[in-house]
Amino acid sequence: MKYLMTFSYDGSKFFGYQKQPDKTSVQEVIESKLAQINSNNDVVISASGRTDAGVHAINQKAHFTLDSEIEPSRLKHSLNEMLPPSIYIKDIKVVDDNFHARFNVKEKIYQYKINVGEYNPIEAEYIYQYCKELDVNKMIEASKHLLGEHNFKSFTKPSSEEKSYIRKIYDIDIKKDKDIIYLTFKGNGFMRYMVRNLVGTLIEVGSGKITSDDVARIINAEDRRDAGICAPACGLYLYDVIY
Amino acid sequence: MKYLMTFSYDGSKFFGYQKQPDKTSVQEVIESKLAQINSNNDVVISASGRTDAGVHAINQKAHFTLDSEIEPSRLKHSLNEMLPPSIYIKDIKVVDDNFHARFNVKEKIYQYKINVGEYNPIEAEYIYQYCKELDVNKMIEASKHLLGEHNFKSFTKPSSEEKSYIRKIYDIDIKKDKDIIYLTFKGNGFMRYMVRNLVGTLIEVGSGKITSDDVARIINAEDRRDAGICAPACGLYLYDVIY
Repeated sequence: MKYLMTFSYDGSKFFGYQKQPDKTSVQEVIESKLAQINSNNDVVISASGRTDAGVHAINQKAHFTLDSEIEPSRLKHSLNEMLPPSIYIKDIKVVDDNFHARFNVKEKIYQYKINVGEYNPIEAEYIYQYCKELDVNKMIEASKHLLGEHNFKSFTKPSSEEKSYIRKIYDIDIKKDKDIIYLTFKGNGFMRYMVRNLVGTLIEVGSGKITSDDVARIINAEDRRDAGICAPACGLYLYDVIY
Repeated sequence: MKYLMTFSYDGSKFFGYQKQPDKTSVQEVIESKLAQINSNNDVVISASGRTDAGVHAINQKAHFTLDSEIEPSRLKHSLNEMLPPSIYIKDIKVVDDNFHARFNVKEKIYQYKINVGEYNPIEAEYIYQYCKELDVNKMIEASKHLLGEHNFKSFTKPSSEEKSYIRKIYDIDIKKDKDIIYLTFKGNGFMRYMVRNLVGTLIEVGSGKITSDDVARIINAEDRRDAGICAPACGLYLYDVIY
């Protein structure tokens, strides 16, 4: 029986989503609990995509197959009983055998949080503490250049795994509430470090280091060296995955 | 020269505020950095009071004396450069030699946070995840019994160190915003576990286990066994100290 689960996690407690030797990952922790439920037979979970070390998830999604049929709400309850406080299964449902949590993605939503006010030690691992003023209107203006279909090679780490650097961004919403700036990105897919590099570049616009027009130039350059810094992982949340 | 500093910390990263052998405390970390600034001579910081393991502080206050005079804003900057991300010095000012951060307290403010909505792994160490409905109006009604001067022996751990169990609560504010209940307590002083025991008792009122009138009875009993459970440390914040 094939299942799709929606889950959230505190990225500060893991060395990233993806399984790797000798390091605690979200994938490994969930797979080890699912194997116990699956009569000690290995279970592999396939997520919508990986998140890097320190990146959080509000609604990550992954599919997996169990040998027997278990009622989804009971499965959710059992898993949550076994998992550490840093991971929570929000929902499980049965899906078709041909469903794939990565290949079937229609839209992904990421949110990035920046604190431009006083440093807050309680949120050290949950927000990027920039602690300097940023011009949100300039950031909004610059973000318009990023909308639509572009070659985003300037905003990712070139990789032989990447068949194409073309992605489509449907919407970028930038809002300030008190001292926190929330940047929400919706698109058909985001490459490695892409959201953090986009945020780093928009921060350079907000701080006055570059202009809105420079963003258009950076996209066209198709060269990572032209874009801004990679904003820290702690501010990034995988907000939702839509099929 | 005597200084008063205001600082915040993430209680989940320490075994409490107070120095103790072989365990990382907020006091020990700050004192070790201040000693470096004080030509490697020991510095003792005297806080407004201790906070238990897991309890956070938004505005904790402490006084200390240095051998030489250092401009407060420069001292603040140097300390913050040396401290880990889990502690932040918000302000330092020079005070009179007879000032005492504990004995001069006029009012202390604590805040407690309860999440009655879906479990959130990202706030596991920063909120009490109760995840069940609570009747806020009943909690507000019951809280009125706690206002004013009372013997709060039912709400603390009896101790030979405590000369009197009488304290005065000036105000209790209980608000719900979305799924989060915020309980703010203002008083002339709070004994060990007192706020968490008050919250545990108010939760029993909110869940319907006891009534508002039971709270009056519990105060009069002057017996810890009559009050509710001690609410977990993670939801508690030392919000402010007023002199």
